[in-house]
Amino acid sequence: MKKVVTFGEIMMRLSTPNHARFQQSTSFDINFGGGEANVSSSLAIMGIPASHVTRFPDNDLGTAAINTYRKYGLSMQDVVRGGERLGIYYVEQGAAMRPSKVIYDRANSSFASLKPSEFNWEQIFEDAQWFHFTGITPAISASAAQACLEAAQTASRLGLKVSADVGYRSNLWKWGKKPSEIMPELIENCDMIICSKGDAEDMFGIVPNDEKRSFKSVCQQLTDCFPKLKKVLSTKRGQISASHNTLVGKCWNGFEMLETKQINIPDIVDRIGGGDAFMAGFIYGEIIYQNTQKAIEFGVAASALKHTIEGDFNLSSVKEIEVVMNGDVSGKLRR
Amino acid sequence: MKKVVTFGEIMMRLSTPNHARFQQSTSFDINFGGGEANVSSSLAIMGIPASHVTRFPDNDLGTAAINTYRKYGLSMQDVVRGGERLGIYYVEQGAAMRPSKVIYDRANSSFASLKPSEFNWEQIFEDAQWFHFTGITPAISASAAQACLEAAQTASRLGLKVSADVGYRSNLWKWGKKPSEIMPELIENCDMIICSKGDAEDMFGIVPNDEKRSFKSVCQQLTDCFPKLKKVLSTKRGQISASHNTLVGKCWNGFEMLETKQINIPDIVDRIGGGDAFMAGFIYGEIIYQNTQKAIEFGVAASALKHTIEGDFNLSSVKEIEVVMNGDVSGKLRR
Amino acid sequence: MKKVVTFGEIMMRLSTPNHARFQQSTSFDINFGGGEANVSSSLAIMGIPASHVTRFPDNDLGTAAINTYRKYGLSMQDVVRGGERLGIYYVEQGAAMRPSKVIYDRANSSFASLKPSEFNWEQIFEDAQWFHFTGITPAISASAAQACLEAAQTASRLGLKVSADVGYRSNLWKWGKKPSEIMPELIENCDMIICSKGDAEDMFGIVPNDEKRSFKSVCQQLTDCFPKLKKVLSTKRGQISASHNTLVGKCWNGFEMLETKQINIPDIVDRIGGGDAFMAGFIYGEIIYQNTQKAIEFGVAASALKHTIEGDFNLSSVKEIEVVMNGDVSGKLRR
Amino acid sequence: MKKVVTFGEIMMRLSTPNHARFQQSTSFDINFGGGEANVSSSLAIMGIPASHVTRFPDNDLGTAAINTYRKYGLSMQDVVRGGERLGIYYVEQGAAMRPSKVIYDRANSSFASLKPSEFNWEQIFEDAQWFHFTGITPAISASAAQACLEAAQTASRLGLKVSADVGYRSNLWKWGKKPSEIMPELIENCDMIICSKGDAEDMFGIVPNDEKRSFKSVCQQLTDCFPKLKKVLSTKRGQISASHNTLVGKCWNGFEMLETKQINIPDIVDRIGGGDAFMAGFIYGEIIYQNTQKAIEFGVAASALKHTIEGDFNLSSVKEIEVVMNGDVSGKLRR
Amino acid sequence: MKKVVTFGEIMMRLSTPNHARFQQSTSFDINFGGGEANVSSSLAIMGIPASHVTRFPDNDLGTAAINTYRKYGLSMQDVVRGGERLGIYYVEQGAAMRPSKVIYDRANSSFASLKPSEFNWEQIFEDAQWFHFTGITPAISASAAQACLEAAQTASRLGLKVSADVGYRSNLWKWGKKPSEIMPELIENCDMIICSKGDAEDMFGIVPNDEKRSFKSVCQQLTDCFPKLKKVLSTKRGQISASHNTLVGKCWNGFEMLETKQINIPDIVDRIGGGDAFMAGFIYGEIIYQNTQKAIEFGVAASALKHTIEGDFNLSSVKEIEVVMNGDVSGKLRR
Amino acid sequence: MKKVVTFGEIMMRLSTPNHARFQQSTSFDINFGGGEANVSSSLAIMGIPASHVTRFPDNDLGTAAINTYRKYGLSMQDVVRGGERLGIYYVEQGAAMRPSKVIYDRANSSFASLKPSEFNWEQIFEDAQWFHFTGITPAISASAAQACLEAAQTASRLGLKVSADVGYRSNLWKWGKKPSEIMPELIENCDMIICSKGDAEDMFGIVPNDEKRSFKSVCQQLTDCFPKLKKVLSTKRGQISASHNTLVGKCWNGFEMLETKQINIPDIVDRIGGGDAFMAGFIYGEIIYQNTQKAIEFGVAASALKHTIEGDFNLSSVKEIEVVMNGDVSGKLRR
Repeated sequence: MKKVVTFGEIMMRLSTPNHARFQQSTSFDINFGGGEANVSSSLAIMGIPASHVTRFPDNDLGTAAINTYRKYGLSMQDVVRGGERLGIYYVEQGAAMRPSKVIYDRANSSFASLKPSEFNWEQIFEDAQWFHFTGITPAISASAAQACLEAAQTASRLGLKVSADVGYRSNLWKWGKKPSEIMPELIENCDMIICSKGDAEDMFGIVPNDEKRSFKSVCQQLTDCFPKLKKVLSTKRGQISASHNTLVGKCWNGFEMLETKQINIPDIVDRIGGGDAFMAGFIYGEIIYQNTQKAIEFGVAASALKHTIEGDFNLSSVKEIEVVMNGDVSGKLRR
Repeated sequence: MKKVVTFGEIMMRLSTPNHARFQQSTSFDINFGGGEANVSSSLAIMGIPASHVTRFPDNDLGTAAINTYRKYGLSMQDVVRGGERLGIYYVEQGAAMRPSKVIYDRANSSFASLKPSEFNWEQIFEDAQWFHFTGITPAISASAAQACLEAAQTASRLGLKVSADVGYRSNLWKWGKKPSEIMPELIENCDMIICSKGDAEDMFGIVPNDEKRSFKSVCQQLTDCFPKLKKVLSTKRGQISASHNTLVGKCWNGFEMLETKQINIPDIVDRIGGGDAFMAGFIYGEIIYQNTQKAIEFGVAASALKHTIEGDFNLSSVKEIEVVMNGDVSGKLRR
Repeated sequence: MKKVVTFGEIMMRLSTPNHARFQQSTSFDINFGGGEANVSSSLAIMGIPASHVTRFPDNDLGTAAINTYRKYGLSMQDVVRGGERLGIYYVEQGAAMRPSKVIYDRANSSFASLKPSEFNWEQIFEDAQWFHFTGITPAISASAAQACLEAAQTASRLGLKVSADVGYRSNLWKWGKKPSEIMPELIENCDMIICSKGDAEDMFGIVPNDEKRSFKSVCQQLTDCFPKLKKVLSTKRGQISASHNTLVGKCWNGFEMLETKQINIPDIVDRIGGGDAFMAGFIYGEIIYQNTQKAIEFGVAASALKHTIEGDFNLSSVKEIEVVMNGDVSGKLRR
Repeated sequence: MKKVVTFGEIMMRLSTPNHARFQQSTSFDINFGGGEANVSSSLAIMGIPASHVTRFPDNDLGTAAINTYRKYGLSMQDVVRGGERLGIYYVEQGAAMRPSKVIYDRANSSFASLKPSEFNWEQIFEDAQWFHFTGITPAISASAAQACLEAAQTASRLGLKVSADVGYRSNLWKWGKKPSEIMPELIENCDMIICSKGDAEDMFGIVPNDEKRSFKSVCQQLTDCFPKLKKVLSTKRGQISASHNTLVGKCWNGFEMLETKQINIPDIVDRIGGGDAFMAGFIYGEIIYQNTQKAIEFGVAASALKHTIEGDFNLSSVKEIEVVMNGDVSGKLRR
Repeated sequence: MKKVVTFGEIMMRLSTPNHARFQQSTSFDINFGGGEANVSSSLAIMGIPASHVTRFPDNDLGTAAINTYRKYGLSMQDVVRGGERLGIYYVEQGAAMRPSKVIYDRANSSFASLKPSEFNWEQIFEDAQWFHFTGITPAISASAAQACLEAAQTASRLGLKVSADVGYRSNLWKWGKKPSEIMPELIENCDMIICSKGDAEDMFGIVPNDEKRSFKSVCQQLTDCFPKLKKVLSTKRGQISASHNTLVGKCWNGFEMLETKQINIPDIVDRIGGGDAFMAGFIYGEIIYQNTQKAIEFGVAASALKHTIEGDFNLSSVKEIEVVMNGDVSGKLRR
Repeated sequence: MKKVVTFGEIMMRLSTPNHARFQQSTSFDINFGGGEANVSSSLAIMGIPASHVTRFPDNDLGTAAINTYRKYGLSMQDVVRGGERLGIYYVEQGAAMRPSKVIYDRANSSFASLKPSEFNWEQIFEDAQWFHFTGITPAISASAAQACLEAAQTASRLGLKVSADVGYRSNLWKWGKKPSEIMPELIENCDMIICSKGDAEDMFGIVPNDEKRSFKSVCQQLTDCFPKLKKVLSTKRGQISASHNTLVGKCWNGFEMLETKQINIPDIVDRIGGGDAFMAGFIYGEIIYQNTQKAIEFGVAASALKHTIEGDFNLSSVKEIEVVMNGDVSGKLRR
């Protein structure tokens, strides 16, 4: 099978154990994560060949990051080494009505200071079928945006499927351009995107133009705007507490709004990466099932299971996800 | 008070901490457990004299197993040392819709290679009032089945109460005989058993023969089939998620189907051993209360409390169980 | 801003990690707590200048206690060193229907053996606006009761607001006097108290004298009885399980019974100190909002958040509490 | 084989992990220890039947203490329950030139408040061959001294060997009598004691009366003074650092001063209980080898191994100790 | 660069943390190790392409083992899945005069039950320059011995360098043949071996035939006996204590006995795998330096560093090893 | 007593537990440290009033840093909040011949981006007797160098003693100036400095000008060069291994070279901050003993004890240091 390639920053995630607050914790648990690598590593764990492209400092922390992903079978062979530092994000795990808190410390990272010329996209995409990126990458620095554009264009030209998670992060985009100056040219290369109503407005200035102010109306405008774009995905998260969410997945396929049943997610272990697990599940479904309704159902089941697992990416097998997709959420002991 | 004796394999249980998946855990928590010793150790903690009979390798792991039970007051004086290894079972604790996973590594254990002649049952049952075994023991090896039969027959002959948990384990019974060739002769010695509808079919070929395909019909056939058998127990577990179950206890006493109220078990800490805690509670109730309805109610309360405790057996006192049995599930702080 | 002063015993709290039972734990987590210091430390964390007065042994454990509170900005400058030992309380964290258990080992502590002359209250109250104590302090020893009375009288005379949590602890009061011989003289100095129906009877012999046997009737008698007393607070805790409570706050302001909405507290991390967090929140509200309804609402929100935090006192900022007070209990991730 | 009986206080030991200072530790490791139980539990682990007599509070901590010793095969059947609290001692593990620190919090313990009538010594000594106590017991309280005297006299009368570790603890003996008023009557019952030069002076007013001010001279006076006394033991500890000691064992047998070679003890894991391990080893040697020279050599080897083991008592088998006694201190890996 | 291939069993290693004894530990740290994979993983970490061939059960433990090695860059692409269980070895870390203890539980492992036909050696050795195995592999089972022979013969035929660690393990070789019936045919394919005097006698019946009973004499006989064999390696370990060793490396190159200086290894963190780290270092030196004296010096430096690292294999870079090889053992802080 | 003020960056230190390598660690222990705050916090712990001046980001990590120092009694009242991030340094603890490794990630910290105008030195130095800084501060950024100069000049003008640790860090000084352009003007304000031979050359271009190339010659040139400078300190560290060092302290007082005995530091727990502990000890000695020989002896003893304590600063009391200063390095257990 041909591989899936992702491109984006990976940060070291330092999280307080046992719901401790930053003020009281005496240690951090170490994980690594990034919106794009979360997708490709989840795919690798499901058995889909996958490779992640990024840039790490040439020190032991960069090596530790590489090793973490190699462990789970994700190819790191096209990772570039250089720059000053590994970006960090700190996580304080919440509980009940106390939200989890994230402190980013990612400025001036090795990824932010990448040079587009360090990546030979034609070579990277040899033997690949799919390229996925997110709206975080162009938000990091001018050079990251440029490299991302070259990647998307090359992938599209070489006939790969191209997908993107168009997530607007208000605390990024500090390098001089607005999302609306950058994102449209990127999205022109995409076959499918995740994009919420809010993202559509922030990124493309698209607002619903029907009476119900519906998401469908946004999707229609998006597919009108970007002729290559065939599917627009979205998830609806019900936020009962930091320990209890619900999730519904949606996909506008150009004709109708497909939708999953709502899944109940109580007793959350780690909510971070839930959206990326959905995306990974969706890509798996598109490649293997070749059925979009099944793909979003698999995506939602994958996302639900991710919430029961510590760390940014989804250590669930296809078999485990299919049990949940098929409606068995009983968690019955397997002997 | 005369003692309760149990016979069966004890394994080392290695479980991942904090709901970690096998793939990500860097350590295992050590516990010990076995369906029969879980019953006798729970009884010892409730103050009922109890002794467990098994076979351990003559190494530090066997000694560690003995010490664990001695700690809680269970007599290990009749344990035989010999054979090659201590059986292991690995546990990955699930959460929400992710089930706990168990990997067994128990083949060729010291228990499986026991010789029936190593156990002097007449001597072991001196000063005993009750013998309990499970359907796991005869499933392990021919010699284990033989020793179990000798134990049950001796106990019956000496006038002890004999009980069994007739649980069918499809991943055992590999030594050449089917359960239906072995179990009937064993159950002939029993005064009471735990036996689900499914077990009755797998073990004895008994299926409900009334219109409602009722459990009562199964119980009647069982007591008809085994004249010594007076009570048939069962539990009904509602499986809402890996972290949330419900439980009802039942007992056919030859005349009517006694039943407890359903108990709600949210926020599960460790579900393993829940059935054995019910059995221990039931034996306690039979001995102390001499009232079968109260015995199943105490059993269900004991089982519920077990779910809040890490490890295979029930570290709850009679007083604590009685609070729950009497309907106080508020968990109100005791100062 | 002028400071809030509290007076009372601080104990070392030794709690079993991960819901372990006392029988199985191999380590204790160390925290410190006391009903009065829990209030002042929570206030210090909210940015209100606060000082706690107590007595510690002159050893490393006493110093560790001081350091713990200094860390969070509570002044310990008026702490007296002397006496034999630091009181201890052991905590076994419960779950679901299993209650948390507390074992006190506080007799003969440095606090119990204090001499009233060791505290110069006039000097301690310099630059103070509020004095808070609890019914635990006079219950510990004759000298503690005497020092508490001197403190309350001095505070009242100097024009500080005086508040008390009138909690009756049946396992204290062993030094020769009954609460009813001691408490009235103390409460005469108070502007506001927390007092449940049961406390009112135990401490002051006051029972409801209306048909509905209402709390309001108790409050009216209390304010009649103690002319300086203007507000009587109470919380109503719904005890669904050790892991799930609800809370309502009430305040009789002399005219009407103010009441908060009920807040739902699932997935409890640590229930201890919940009442003190309410008191701290209420004092904050009285000082900053100068609005009693808002003060009890802030108190209830503060208390709810405390339940999600390990340890006796509330590591929550004003901003975090206000989010909950304003009805957002979604625990939505803050990036 | 007949059993060895010991009598004395057991405390909960709370120690900081990983050499942490009291000021910085956030948890305590839990162990239990006492100078007498350290001896009997070490003997039980070596396969000598042994029983310890003490008094514990009737709470979960007392039960946890009992369970700890039962685990290792020490009989706790004659333990009395009652009194207020379990004594505690806190340990901060040192390193290099930083000494370990101990904070005692044992006043008013269940043991200190025992009543001599609670112990039926004739019954306790049934089937016993040896009674061992230490100078700590009579130092705790008048009633403990009285019970200890009754025990020693009964043991002597019944023909048991009686031994004592005459260690003077300057921070005890607060109950009104001096050691010299109490100890002689106790030692009159002893066949052998451990007693340093300093102890002899503090306890019995005996100072060397030869020119060299030799320990031999002290021993001779002791055996003159106490006609029943046949052997006087002592250890000489070389204190290179908190992590590195040396040890020599000595025994005056009435005729000559037996002495072991010096053993080197580098890389100390836990020094506490080293003397008790020597005593246990010596008793083992006297009972099994019936050779005093071999007994002190076994004692020194046992003590050395204790220093490599966390906790108060010696988790070493006879076989392991004999390897060291026979001169192999290479620590060569056993596959 | 062409790769190095190793073949042999990998076991899960479960070790007690912090020098705890088996009797007292409540958890095991998880590592993986095997005499051959320890060599190839160390080489991969040094940047030499390497692949390990083995057989794992098709469960999560087998996958966890694969992931561990993938993490460090060792190719696991030729691993076969099948069989019943993952072999285990338990480690109790010693200290000072207390030896570390190992309990093996490896019988009936997936590796032991391999079928030689499962390995296509011609394909496995594509693009390889070196094959390394140990005397443990043929000791495990008849089929393992057969597969090892096929591998060695194929490697030799294809012109790879072949090396072996001829270590005799008395607790293996239970499948029916003696080492002397199996090993000679294997060693005929080797270019270099590690072989102690004792191994030479146990495996080949070769004893020194000169007056000094020298190792040199053994080496000469070995190279006479096996014409392809050019180098015989050995290490001499000084065993001062479990925490302090010394090491010397030797190599008979057919002409002279090369020897390193003795290196001092105090403050040992983990001694296991020290010999394999030497072998890996030697292979590195042969490939990169092409100088046998330098190769054994690099090997000894690598081995010394391994002793400071937890786990079976050597997480040291070439640069770090060269510092030690060049005589700097000061451990000076690198800022 | 008047206070000691220090000025400089504080970083979060993230270190691997139990000597783990960066590649294998799954958690970091959290400490905080900085060459200047290490001095003032050690002084605060010794009972000398002390205050540290720095700049932290206005997030929970900055607050956690403040709280850590407040805990130990260091005043943080003059800390400025602002800027982007808290600098980090990662520590991998070495052992034996494996050095500890440090990875700095301190660029663009809140401290580096400080504005000199944020610090009102006249007000900060109210009630102060001593100002201490290091050569790290001017190496960080132009504005840090400028603020440091203003601080030193103000302190000198106000009559405070001024001291500096002139340590050259080759990985800093990236902001455009060389040390020799900045340091002389700073040192003109100093009464005493720590300065090695190497520092003197790097910072001031001063090399020994006598035959023996002695340190004394360097000192004489320094005091000639800087008229206010009266004392030049230095330590000589013997680097036996990462776990074993030796230390000698020296001080040129303008007349003679004072020197301490060499202290042996085996079994090192944490070597970082050893130099700062010496400086703190020296300042203590100057203030309290007013005797320079005693001050360096106290400094060396303090430094030795620091090596036994985890973390950057010295949690030792004056009493503990004096025991070591007086020659008792036996680490004898204190009961």
